[in-house]
Amino acid sequence: MMPKTFLEKKSAHSIHIGVFDSGIGGLTVLKSLAQNFPFAKFTYLGDTARLPYGSKSPETIRKYSEQIMNFLKAQNVDAIVIACNSASSQVSEKKWGEIPVFNVIDPGVRQALQTSVNLRIGVLGTRATINSQSYQNRLQQSQNNCTVIAQACPLFVPLAEEGWIDDPLTNLVVHRYLAPLLLQQIDTLVLGCTHYPLLKNSIEKVCGKNVHLVDSGQAIAEDLRNTLSLNQKITVDDKPEIHLLLTDLSEHLKNWASEIMFPLSVDEIIAADL
Amino acid sequence: MMPKTFLEKKSAHSIHIGVFDSGIGGLTVLKSLAQNFPFAKFTYLGDTARLPYGSKSPETIRKYSEQIMNFLKAQNVDAIVIACNSASSQVSEKKWGEIPVFNVIDPGVRQALQTSVNLRIGVLGTRATINSQSYQNRLQQSQNNCTVIAQACPLFVPLAEEGWIDDPLTNLVVHRYLAPLLLQQIDTLVLGCTHYPLLKNSIEKVCGKNVHLVDSGQAIAEDLRNTLSLNQKITVDDKPEIHLLLTDLSEHLKNWASEIMFPLSVDEIIAADL
Repeated sequence: MMPKTFLEKKSAHSIHIGVFDSGIGGLTVLKSLAQNFPFAKFTYLGDTARLPYGSKSPETIRKYSEQIMNFLKAQNVDAIVIACNSASSQVSEKKWGEIPVFNVIDPGVRQALQTSVNLRIGVLGTRATINSQSYQNRLQQSQNNCTVIAQACPLFVPLAEEGWIDDPLTNLVVHRYLAPLLLQQIDTLVLGCTHYPLLKNSIEKVCGKNVHLVDSGQAIAEDLRNTLSLNQKITVDDKPEIHLLLTDLSEHLKNWASEIMFPLSVDEIIAADL
Repeated sequence: MMPKTFLEKKSAHSIHIGVFDSGIGGLTVLKSLAQNFPFAKFTYLGDTARLPYGSKSPETIRKYSEQIMNFLKAQNVDAIVIACNSASSQVSEKKWGEIPVFNVIDPGVRQALQTSVNLRIGVLGTRATINSQSYQNRLQQSQNNCTVIAQACPLFVPLAEEGWIDDPLTNLVVHRYLAPLLLQQIDTLVLGCTHYPLLKNSIEKVCGKNVHLVDSGQAIAEDLRNTLSLNQKITVDDKPEIHLLLTDLSEHLKNWASEIMFPLSVDEIIAADL
C-alpha cells in the first residue's frame, strides 16, 4: 500500500505517471488516465520494436519489463502503470524501488467481482492472455464460486488496427465470439486486452444492456485514485502533458496513436532507445 | 543457375529440401512442394519463438535468416526455400555455400507477369510486406508498363488462424479488401503472404473467373522443378518424408500445422533450438 502522505510530498500538478505496453494498445489505458487526471504529466513507453510480448517466454517478457521500468524510473516517474496483459502477468511487484507499480489485471478482476450479481463472468483476451489463465485464476482465487467463461478473440486487434470501428463487419465478428458467452448468461464481461475498448461500441451493441463491460483503463484509474489519493478537483485549465515514446516508430503508428488519443492532444511522439 | 548435373550426383529419392518461415504460414508452400515432389524429403523450420519477422529490422531479419540457413545446411539439405516474405526480401543470395536458395517473391512476380494480359496486377500481403514494396518494385523492374495495385490485408492471417475458411464472414472481409482492386480491373492477383492460400476459396469466390490467382507455393514448385530438373515420374508409392521443426511448440500450433498439411501426413513435429 502507498503511504497516505504520497501526495503531500509534491504538488499534484507535478505528478508524473509512467505507462508502458508492448505496443500502442495501452494507449486506451493512458487515455483513461489522462482524462481522469488531466493535472498530471504522462510518459508512455510502447515497445513497438519488440511486440508482441504474448508469444514470448516468461523470462523474456520479465527482462523487457524490467528494462522499461528502469527506463521509466530514470525519467523520475511517481508511479508505473503496466498497460500490457502479458507484462502484467510476469511482474508481481507492487513497487519498483520506491515507485508504486500498477498492473492491468488486478483492477479488472476486482471490478468484475464487484459488479457481477450472478457471478457468471466472461473474459475476452488475446490467445496468449486466455491461455495464460491469468484472469481466470485470479477471479477464481478471489471468489471460488464464480464461473468464468474465457474467449480468445484474435481478430479484435487487427479489426481495431484497421479502424473498422462501428462497422457492421466488426459487429458480426463480435457476435461470432460472444454468442457462446451470452448463451451462458454472463452478466459481466472483462475486456482483457488494452485494444478492446476501441471496439466497445460494437461489443455493447452485441451484449445489450444486461451485460456490464469492465474496461481495464477505467478500473486502473480508480485504483490509482484510491492508492495515490488523486482526489483533487479538476479545473477547466487542466491539460495533461503527454509524451509518447515508441521503440519503433512509423507514420502508420504515429497516425494511429493520435487517433486513439483523440480528442486529447499529444505533446510529442518520438522514437526511443531502451 | 544450378548445374544440370545436380540430380545426377544423387538419387532423386534422396533429395532433401529445406524450407523455412517465421511461423507456420510457410507450410502452404511446403505442402505445394511435397505434393509436387512426393519422392523428396523435407525439413521445415518455423521460427515460431521469434515471429513475426515483418515488424523487425532488416538487420535482425537477415541475422535470423542466416542462422536458419546455417541450421538447414547442417542438416545436409540440397536446396533451401525461403517461404517467408520478410526473409525473402532480405536474402538476395541465390546460393548459401553450395546450396541453391529460392525465395518466395521472385517466382510469384514471374508468374504474375506471365499470366497477366492487361498488365494490371493486384498484390495482397501483410502490412509489412506491402510497405516494403518488394513485390511492387520487382514487378515494375521486370515490366515497367505494368500497373500494380497493392493492398495490405491484416485480417487475413488471423482469419486463417481461426480456421474460418469458406465462411460467409471471411467472404465479407475478402470483399472489403478486394473491391477497390476489382474496380481497377486487375486480371491477376498475387497472394503475397504464405497464409493466404488458406483463404483461396473465399478469394476465388470474390474475384470471379476473370482474375487469375498467383499462389507462391505453386510458383516456387515450378521454379524448383526447372532449376533442379525434378521431372521424374511420380509413382503411387511415392510418399514425401516431412519433418516439421518449430522453435516454439504448442498444442495449438501442432494441431494447426497438421490441419494445414492435411491430407499429407507429417512424420514428426518437434521443438528445435537454433
